[in-house]
Amino acid sequence: MNFPTLSDIRAAHERIQPFIHRTPVLTSTAINEIAGCEIFFKCENFQKVGAFKARGAANAVLKLSPEQKAKGVATHSSGNHAAALARAASVAGIPSYIVMPSNAPEIKKKAVKGYGGEIIECEPTQKDRETTLEAVVERTGATFIPPFDYLDVIEGQATCALELLEELPDLDVVIAPVGGGGLLAGTALTVHYLNPKTQVIAGEPTGADDAFRSFREGAIIPNTTTQTMADGLLTTLGKLPFAIIQKHVEDILLATDPEIVEAMRLVYERMKVVIEPSGAVPLAALLANKERFSGRKVGIIISGGNVDLGKLPF
Amino acid sequence: MNFPTLSDIRAAHERIQPFIHRTPVLTSTAINEIAGCEIFFKCENFQKVGAFKARGAANAVLKLSPEQKAKGVATHSSGNHAAALARAASVAGIPSYIVMPSNAPEIKKKAVKGYGGEIIECEPTQKDRETTLEAVVERTGATFIPPFDYLDVIEGQATCALELLEELPDLDVVIAPVGGGGLLAGTALTVHYLNPKTQVIAGEPTGADDAFRSFREGAIIPNTTTQTMADGLLTTLGKLPFAIIQKHVEDILLATDPEIVEAMRLVYERMKVVIEPSGAVPLAALLANKERFSGRKVGIIISGGNVDLGKLPF
Repeated sequence: MNFPTLSDIRAAHERIQPFIHRTPVLTSTAINEIAGCEIFFKCENFQKVGAFKARGAANAVLKLSPEQKAKGVATHSSGNHAAALARAASVAGIPSYIVMPSNAPEIKKKAVKGYGGEIIECEPTQKDRETTLEAVVERTGATFIPPFDYLDVIEGQATCALELLEELPDLDVVIAPVGGGGLLAGTALTVHYLNPKTQVIAGEPTGADDAFRSFREGAIIPNTTTQTMADGLLTTLGKLPFAIIQKHVEDILLATDPEIVEAMRLVYERMKVVIEPSGAVPLAALLANKERFSGRKVGIIISGGNVDLGKLPF
Repeated sequence: MNFPTLSDIRAAHERIQPFIHRTPVLTSTAINEIAGCEIFFKCENFQKVGAFKARGAANAVLKLSPEQKAKGVATHSSGNHAAALARAASVAGIPSYIVMPSNAPEIKKKAVKGYGGEIIECEPTQKDRETTLEAVVERTGATFIPPFDYLDVIEGQATCALELLEELPDLDVVIAPVGGGGLLAGTALTVHYLNPKTQVIAGEPTGADDAFRSFREGAIIPNTTTQTMADGLLTTLGKLPFAIIQKHVEDILLATDPEIVEAMRLVYERMKVVIEPSGAVPLAALLANKERFSGRKVGIIISGGNVDLGKLPF
């Protein structure tokens, strides 16, 4: 398997740079005191579309051939990838077709429409999402850009850690959340290339712990049910990300929903920053395993800030 | 009356710099589109103690004589000034005595205690606050540092606009919220000195509109009742700030509570930043008067981010 190399990742960063934010790295003395270590938060909640997903989608779209571009891109998603792909397509001036379940939140549909994406509704089942998408691709000739199980997307997500390590080359650990695994795999590749001594650790919600179990078993064990507020991390780990994670990730740590709420609260109260539950999982996992990080320099990727303000857990 | 000069304000900035954050200036394409102008948010919600109050309190404490310092500082406050003064005193290694009404929120008391301030409880009336403070000053010899009606505090608050205009010298307008008037007066002085062509405008809640009425009448007309969620802006305008505001402020614009909620929501959703209701008042006032700002470059001071997460209006 040809995983992205360091020069591939650097090229991806050059490619997408005009279309994404270089997000800030924030620190909080108060949170450091509570955690007993020195934390550097890479704030992808400030990223375009409010999540790191803007990186992978932009990279995948910009790498298409002119012929592919002419026919546009398609995906099925009810979350941040939908908006990210619609935006990337809009930036590239090409059409996008987004298959969304009929019960997707109105605000997510609005975001996709705002970027000029065409929404195709389907039944809220995995099967109908897939068959609807197949029909769309058949009809339009658009290229399917999956949310994480796709090398160009992983390559794009890898640019986040590139910025973080350019700023802080001597981190002891980087913690990223894991859902489908695109961000974690990209992070693991970049960190491996730039500083093999830096450990990469994942944070995962206890209520959707397929990556935790898969990592220990050495084979993907899908979630049969999921129950967590971290709605960005419900998907089962992808095959490509898993291959990278097995090689370059040190460990996967779990956090319960009450621990996630507490980590969210800390970030809102002490850093005055809005993050989504999934974005709080790495800090929650760190705080649940404080002794392991004691006195160390830790980079944490805050994956996104798209939260329904009417449903905050406070 | 000897108001702070530009070199006084610059000296204050030098004096307090080691003890405060130089807060970032953020922008949002989405909010600019909605507002029809170009807005630069000076984010004092990221300031120490979560509000601009850290500036004035630090300046006032650091300017005390060694004899005064030895006896400490005192104030009455249930809000951000209480925490800011306790922290400034702690940084200077001197005692602080904070008179707080018995019904002050537990979290505010905790903040003061966290900075080593001594809390003296009083009845929740203006009269008992004042007599209790007098007794404390009598007993300890501490210097009373008022929250806004005090030149060294105004001089400290003036350093916020100094940073803003250093970064953006050609703003057409700067909008600050007005409660007691310390921040607005300091802002007006700095802007007047650095760029007299830049207008200074205040945002005030309709439910505590004493500054609006006083500005038009040319005399301080206190609030008889107040009714607004912007709990940092309930106090009546101070005499010293008013004298400055009359000279150097262009206008005071009002915002209703629903307009304040809508502005808060925009900042949370689009900028992913936590602000308190008072901090949203300038944006709310701008959006209620869009045509006036159309196409202009506007600086907005977000005064603070200390909000009770359990009581967000969303």
